[in-house]
Amino acid sequence: MNSKSIQELHMKKNLKNPKIVVIGGGTGSYTLLSELKNFTNEITALVTMADDGGSTGVLRDQYGVLPPGDVRQCLVALSNSSEQIRSLFNFRFGEGSMDGHSFGNLFLTAVEKMTDDFGEAIALASKILNITGRVIPITLDNTHLFMLDDNKEIKGEYKIGNSVFNGKSKPDFRLHPHAWINPAAKKAILDADAIIIAPGNFYGSIIPALIVDGVSEALSKTKALKIQITNLVTKPGQTDGWDVAEYASEIERFIGKKSIDYVIYNTKKPSTSMLSQYAKEKEYPVTYNNRELSKKTYTAIGENILDTKIHKKYKNDKIERTLIRHDSKKISKVVISILSSKSIVDKYIKRAYK
Amino acid sequence: MNSKSIQELHMKKNLKNPKIVVIGGGTGSYTLLSELKNFTNEITALVTMADDGGSTGVLRDQYGVLPPGDVRQCLVALSNSSEQIRSLFNFRFGEGSMDGHSFGNLFLTAVEKMTDDFGEAIALASKILNITGRVIPITLDNTHLFMLDDNKEIKGEYKIGNSVFNGKSKPDFRLHPHAWINPAAKKAILDADAIIIAPGNFYGSIIPALIVDGVSEALSKTKALKIQITNLVTKPGQTDGWDVAEYASEIERFIGKKSIDYVIYNTKKPSTSMLSQYAKEKEYPVTYNNRELSKKTYTAIGENILDTKIHKKYKNDKIERTLIRHDSKKISKVVISILSSKSIVDKYIKRAYK
Repeated sequence: MNSKSIQELHMKKNLKNPKIVVIGGGTGSYTLLSELKNFTNEITALVTMADDGGSTGVLRDQYGVLPPGDVRQCLVALSNSSEQIRSLFNFRFGEGSMDGHSFGNLFLTAVEKMTDDFGEAIALASKILNITGRVIPITLDNTHLFMLDDNKEIKGEYKIGNSVFNGKSKPDFRLHPHAWINPAAKKAILDADAIIIAPGNFYGSIIPALIVDGVSEALSKTKALKIQITNLVTKPGQTDGWDVAEYASEIERFIGKKSIDYVIYNTKKPSTSMLSQYAKEKEYPVTYNNRELSKKTYTAIGENILDTKIHKKYKNDKIERTLIRHDSKKISKVVISILSSKSIVDKYIKRAYK
Repeated sequence: MNSKSIQELHMKKNLKNPKIVVIGGGTGSYTLLSELKNFTNEITALVTMADDGGSTGVLRDQYGVLPPGDVRQCLVALSNSSEQIRSLFNFRFGEGSMDGHSFGNLFLTAVEKMTDDFGEAIALASKILNITGRVIPITLDNTHLFMLDDNKEIKGEYKIGNSVFNGKSKPDFRLHPHAWINPAAKKAILDADAIIIAPGNFYGSIIPALIVDGVSEALSKTKALKIQITNLVTKPGQTDGWDVAEYASEIERFIGKKSIDYVIYNTKKPSTSMLSQYAKEKEYPVTYNNRELSKKTYTAIGENILDTKIHKKYKNDKIERTLIRHDSKKISKVVISILSSKSIVDKYIKRAYK
């Protein structure tokens, strides 16, 4: 290794302003982005683009636009504007012909209809919201998620995300029309120092991002550390009884075996009252087996990353959102500690120069 | 007159950054504001607030908000933002559940619903649109226009603005619920150097601004020069056959006799093809009699203030807009020449110190 490489290596070691990419949908990405933006301005949200539920679904149906909802949440998460402007983008009408629509969704829809360019819509919103980093749709193809479960095909991310799976084996998924990776998304993955697969609706939000044609290829090529953040609770009819290892294994079914470097999971038990509230919906905390996890190709990091604040439902929101949430500060601390830890930097450098 | 007064007088004479108030509704105010903002940053749009047609009417009905449409037009007129942001505020949806709504109207409605304060909505839009001057609703009371014509009462500005009057004498108007002048509007009138009554839908847009309780009183108290800009064409069933003097006389029926200082009217004949197009709708150029006008208490100024460009209909707009328009540059030139002319400055000063 020549002196220049060694110099670069030392520069990398500092990782002062790491290039972090967060792949996901709405709430999970929101939690990560809203805090990670304080550690680096090289932060990129890669947004799943098959959403067809709620306000987003209605706007897609009526205006033929790309799904604005998850993009809006990522934009607000990265915003440095006044609380009023951020609240406005999340504000939902509670009556009349805009019933259930958030203002931000209408903003993105209006600019896309006016300019015929979803990128322009994101650019203008990014400016008004004064965001750190970038929000990039993982695909620009207007696509829908299909699931083949027990020989029955179900169409639509929202429907799939809320259905009970019947098949004995895990279901198969496809996007139709065919969805190619957005070139800007590909570049972000290839250039990244770390890529985080956010928590969220597993089959309804995370998988539709990962199965976009070109995503797993880019993930296999990048030198970035790949970090999965495991969900806090299981989803009835879909991930019942899954432990941390099963979540990771199912992600690797789509992006390739041994592709995950780190798995971050929660070890803090939610309050009894919260647990009993969730149990009524047949949702239970994701379990973990430390001995089993220690044998995996990835490094599993168990921490208290639970948010102990009580979250209220957004006003006028028609979709049920989770109340047991990741704590954005705690989770970011773990991510940053991975990126700045000596041994991990060495691992990163080893791969970067192999 | 002491030396201090003389000094003030000389300062006033310069009128470098005159305080100009424009009273009116949509298109007429838009024309004036978009050019006058280049001459002074002390420009104030006082906006008529009884509109209940089109997108504005639907939003008032469904959300109980104050009418956003005319306010939006004034905000865009005063904007120094990029063409894209200005276009976005005027962009109208052409389908789906937002059919016919302009984005700017939805913006103002969303902020008013979120904050319960129309002033906040205007403030936030003013910031995003980066406006010169201020936009002030002439009243903050949620009111509607009523007309008594031949003992028949008609409700609603849009309906009145588009109805054929049957009575032999001129109709009477009232606002219900009772509308008091917005204190900020009163202050703007009292502090102004010049107040312009914009052209526009005479009974459907100008009169509803002037009959707000407190407006005529403020107009009688202010030292400002009061300038009326006469409409270009008559409105069938409402102002058929009116000449310049009759428009002024009808304004003075509502704000008090001898209250107008200047009347600016157009002397340039529109093209034959334009005239025949208008004649089909029974709309004709407003006539004038220079000898008669020379005897009035106001100074009548006839000039070529006609816009010779062809204006297209806004996309997706449900309301018919006028095509024969005032030229914003020509009209502003006349207004500014009034304000800077020596004899006029003397007249202004005479009144200011009497």
